[in-house]
Amino acid sequence: MVAVEAVWGASPGAMAVGVVGGAGVVLRLGVLASGRGTNLQAILDACARGDLPASVAVVVSDRADAQALERARRAGVPAIFVDPRGRKKADFEAEISRILREHGVELVCLAGYMRVLGRTFLREWEGRVLNIHPSLLPAFPGLEAQRQAWDYGVKVSGCTVHFVVPEVDAGPIILQAAVPVLGDDTPESLAARILEQEHRIYVEAIRLYAEGRLRIEGRRVVILPPGEPRVRPEHLPPRQP
Amino acid sequence: MVAVEAVWGASPGAMAVGVVGGAGVVLRLGVLASGRGTNLQAILDACARGDLPASVAVVVSDRADAQALERARRAGVPAIFVDPRGRKKADFEAEISRILREHGVELVCLAGYMRVLGRTFLREWEGRVLNIHPSLLPAFPGLEAQRQAWDYGVKVSGCTVHFVVPEVDAGPIILQAAVPVLGDDTPESLAARILEQEHRIYVEAIRLYAEGRLRIEGRRVVILPPGEPRVRPEHLPPRQP
Repeated sequence: MVAVEAVWGASPGAMAVGVVGGAGVVLRLGVLASGRGTNLQAILDACARGDLPASVAVVVSDRADAQALERARRAGVPAIFVDPRGRKKADFEAEISRILREHGVELVCLAGYMRVLGRTFLREWEGRVLNIHPSLLPAFPGLEAQRQAWDYGVKVSGCTVHFVVPEVDAGPIILQAAVPVLGDDTPESLAARILEQEHRIYVEAIRLYAEGRLRIEGRRVVILPPGEPRVRPEHLPPRQP
Repeated sequence: MVAVEAVWGASPGAMAVGVVGGAGVVLRLGVLASGRGTNLQAILDACARGDLPASVAVVVSDRADAQALERARRAGVPAIFVDPRGRKKADFEAEISRILREHGVELVCLAGYMRVLGRTFLREWEGRVLNIHPSLLPAFPGLEAQRQAWDYGVKVSGCTVHFVVPEVDAGPIILQAAVPVLGDDTPESLAARILEQEHRIYVEAIRLYAEGRLRIEGRRVVILPPGEPRVRPEHLPPRQP
């Protein structure tokens, strides 16, 4: 237990804002978002309710007008726009990485972030970046997954929380939720039904991560039973570039 | 209603063995199987219980020792081995097609049939061949789908009943069932859990077909609400080659 606190405490911004899960520390999240930020809101709400041993330390967006930034400000969370225009992707992502480190981020959550992260960023944050995708991967990777599923005519779709790797939508899967496609669905109504499940399983996946219950084995993610917090590589401070 | 009976009655072997769904006729099924035949058994059982407006008119196998043939015989259903060896695929499939026609088959159900049907056969039986596949297509087509899913590390898999088209595992989807992948699953335990759902949705899909409630629109299958039996092209006798 001491070991866990020591490890978490080693992260510059870690702080004990509540006694959760016996460890008394919360996981500091950095959220990258480009759009509405409904998944960000679900995470903020879960943190505010006190039922997620985590707090959002910073929200970063590649769009100045992203509603996600507004949601962050309303929750009292630092909201930072990083302008991608007129610079190299590597420099842009290095700035994001620096901001995340400065805010003591331990886990990066993509929430409607519309850019593909580069290998340098992902090497630095290896095993510490989660994403949510609105389909049951490996089916329907890429953009407009809900419309792809509807067009294909599947009767079951869903959503997937996974670790991010350089190959798009291909990382080890943490949780999935199945969602029925109904006879009178449109791509929009299907997307709305999937979104409800996204909010639920993204929070749950972050909880599992925060509780040290995720172990990556090859391309499978083993979910360990609840119990004592565990010290895992993912809880070490991020690598320096 | 009369029209429906007339159409069904036009099929050489159609017969009224029970009043089901108000139409008083049953859909005559031909099952192709290469192996154990557990899905065949689920269909036979549902017919025997009287809760499927269908009967198995003939079972055909490409393997003399297929357990499916034994299951058919035990149920009093003609069980015919067609030897694929030493002949052209076209001739082999023409013989199967002839047997199906001779037995008045209206709908062909693949149940663990391990050969890819040729275009000539599928043109003759277009819109009248169903298959069950042990994954949520389009994920994990092909062989050993349950093992593919387990290896990939998905947390949700399932099974799919679809119309058969020349492209393998790519036809319009009728029904799907989601099945969780559990932490202590092996590919075998996952396959067993999926198989339970296969038995359920295959019978249900045949029921929908028998009730005339399936309409193919592009690559989507629309499931019509229950009500009066409908006359549809799929219920016409098979095309002559």
